[in-house]
Amino acid sequence: MNIRLYNARILSMVEGQDLFEGELWVEGSTISYIGESRSDEEIASSGVIFERSIDCEGNLLMPGFKDAHTHSGMTLMRSYADGLPLQEWLETKIFPLEARMTDEDCALLTKLAVLEYLTSGITSIMDMYLAPEAIAKACEETGMRVVQVSGINKFGPSLEVFEERYNELNGKHPLSSYMMGFHAEYTCDRELLEKLSELAHKYEAPMYTHNSETVREVEECKERYGMTPTVFLDSLGMFDYGGGGYHCCHMSDEDIEIFKKRGMSAVTNPGSNTKLASGIAPIKQFLEAGINVAIGTDGPSSNNCLDMFREMFLVTGLAKLREKDASVVSGMDVLRMATVNGAKAMGLNDCDVLAQDKEADIILIDLNQPNMQPINDIPNNIVYSGSKQNVKMTMIHGRILYEDGKFDIGLTPAEIYRSAAAIQKRLF
Amino acid sequence: MNIRLYNARILSMVEGQDLFEGELWVEGSTISYIGESRSDEEIASSGVIFERSIDCEGNLLMPGFKDAHTHSGMTLMRSYADGLPLQEWLETKIFPLEARMTDEDCALLTKLAVLEYLTSGITSIMDMYLAPEAIAKACEETGMRVVQVSGINKFGPSLEVFEERYNELNGKHPLSSYMMGFHAEYTCDRELLEKLSELAHKYEAPMYTHNSETVREVEECKERYGMTPTVFLDSLGMFDYGGGGYHCCHMSDEDIEIFKKRGMSAVTNPGSNTKLASGIAPIKQFLEAGINVAIGTDGPSSNNCLDMFREMFLVTGLAKLREKDASVVSGMDVLRMATVNGAKAMGLNDCDVLAQDKEADIILIDLNQPNMQPINDIPNNIVYSGSKQNVKMTMIHGRILYEDGKFDIGLTPAEIYRSAAAIQKRLF
Repeated sequence: MNIRLYNARILSMVEGQDLFEGELWVEGSTISYIGESRSDEEIASSGVIFERSIDCEGNLLMPGFKDAHTHSGMTLMRSYADGLPLQEWLETKIFPLEARMTDEDCALLTKLAVLEYLTSGITSIMDMYLAPEAIAKACEETGMRVVQVSGINKFGPSLEVFEERYNELNGKHPLSSYMMGFHAEYTCDRELLEKLSELAHKYEAPMYTHNSETVREVEECKERYGMTPTVFLDSLGMFDYGGGGYHCCHMSDEDIEIFKKRGMSAVTNPGSNTKLASGIAPIKQFLEAGINVAIGTDGPSSNNCLDMFREMFLVTGLAKLREKDASVVSGMDVLRMATVNGAKAMGLNDCDVLAQDKEADIILIDLNQPNMQPINDIPNNIVYSGSKQNVKMTMIHGRILYEDGKFDIGLTPAEIYRSAAAIQKRLF
Repeated sequence: MNIRLYNARILSMVEGQDLFEGELWVEGSTISYIGESRSDEEIASSGVIFERSIDCEGNLLMPGFKDAHTHSGMTLMRSYADGLPLQEWLETKIFPLEARMTDEDCALLTKLAVLEYLTSGITSIMDMYLAPEAIAKACEETGMRVVQVSGINKFGPSLEVFEERYNELNGKHPLSSYMMGFHAEYTCDRELLEKLSELAHKYEAPMYTHNSETVREVEECKERYGMTPTVFLDSLGMFDYGGGGYHCCHMSDEDIEIFKKRGMSAVTNPGSNTKLASGIAPIKQFLEAGINVAIGTDGPSSNNCLDMFREMFLVTGLAKLREKDASVVSGMDVLRMATVNGAKAMGLNDCDVLAQDKEADIILIDLNQPNMQPINDIPNNIVYSGSKQNVKMTMIHGRILYEDGKFDIGLTPAEIYRSAAAIQKRLF
């Protein structure tokens, strides 16, 4: 479908390009024009036939948010077993329940998450969870863009399955890809980690993992190997082709140096780190080192929501508290993390900014809501006062999946809620 | 108007009463029935004629949120001069601008804030700002419930005006009251504070003020008087009739003891304290001491939004980070702060819970949104994953002022935005 979005403010996130007023055309799945307003004559002479023309009423078009770390299927455990620290929560509550989830459960619970991502303007997710084939299918069916990451650990799956998925789940569908990763240093033994490093070298692939989320994790790794998780994993050659770490709350100078040297992304998850009392990531230090910082919601059981607006405020707010300095980490810094940097972390090079021939992963932010008025500074408004309520439209791959509170993802919300309740009834 | 709200889940916030399914009747400005569902016969025989009957579709009725500290008129400065620490921000940016605001500006900018409060389910505000008469009128015109607090300081107004306002702005309108207060220890000299204490005694009135917001404030007070702000002010007899402190980030054991002894409320403002890097209040210690803890958004220039959902998550999240303990400050603790405790801090004894003969200050929370599904624990859902998007209806004093995204407060949002933009153009 060809769609014209006119009478808009546009924040393209192209470096050096200021916010401007104009319009944007989508032809099929990509952006075919972005720039100043076009006259009726110019449109006629372009030869493009638009199936829809949307008056943006001065509202803001910008790239969709990239949720660079999540576990979508954990919607089931939202507000279940709150108030526990990470390790106890995982081992006594989450793992036993997950052992009983089917692939179909996982697909449906992922679709429930997709509804929520769309309400928050999230157009792609980096998802680590059970049942990758079912998750890929769920995302393809709903229209969500997904980059899956393996969560392999000593309980499974086998390295053969790991390698097979890497080969099978890439290049088959424009919305879906799969990257190498493992759950965490503390859930893998050394032999497994060494084999994973071999595979990273075999495929020249970047590698992603939960990294230095809690003090306990770092201390136990030091006891085991005499090194921090980052230093230990790097010593195995794990990051020779880059990759990234999720959480990264407790990082030494040496850890940060390794991230920089390997061109790795630090994916921060402030909502989850706050709720689980894990700590505050050194965002200012990452930025000073020139590390690519992206933002993830983490799963809806540890957060408990999939809301990029909450995460964006927390990224800058917690950095200010940590450094005791209100001037660190600006609104634009945060918007870059939530868009361009996220795309970089996820290998989505065509989804980072609004520009000709880029993928049409676009959101429309409602500025005609009281929390955006008066308009003194739009980027700061989004980061410091924005909310899900401001998301008027979410488009992925040229398709409008959410608009004015209504979804177009195949199943209706009521159908998804009913199915999720049935899973809840069966498993709890 | 009489309104029947049926087919609802109800969280009355009455101590010891669990969440239940049933219905609620509003007659005029108060609740006339709350309990199990009524049959058509029962309704007919009650003799009550309902102008509206609302099917709540299983969504949640609960008391509206109480925003126990704000500066509504600062909507003008939203996203203006972000990234500065408190004192510099106040002295170089805010005070010079405020000196040029008219009473009419203040009224209009308060109405802009009212729109935002309603989207967040806030049904009463404790407002400290310029032009109290104009603010009272703005709130009465829009239907907002307001408890104003004097912000007197060494720059004005006079003590005569202070006392006159206390007498004039109380008891005149059911939505509007006025309490004694002053801006802060650091903006008042000792003589003024002593006179204020005399007035507190004359009227046996509780006293409210910004208190121990930053380390600098506490240190400078110690240099001046050899005491913390709380100890110093209490030594003047300022809190002999109770009252409260806003922010209260940096409190000694002795400060906490005084709050307890005087029956004072600690009003926490975590969004503002985060953005201005002021610090994290000792919420766990307040609760352990049995102090009444309420929640405020602070003004929209330091926060930058008026969103009780953000504040609620931050209250518990920051406490967890501060104590390095994920189990402190439960979801229900936070809901009590945002409703019952707020009403107590503001002297709104009829607005605290949903019960017969209480004021009809009620919100309807949409549970049929993806961020609330599946339903494992409704109070935790509200605190940990709720957002403005979940506010379906906000009712104050029996009047529905906000419903399904539409406002009924006299002026339209577009008219208010236009007027705010004109003020912005004139003053910046």
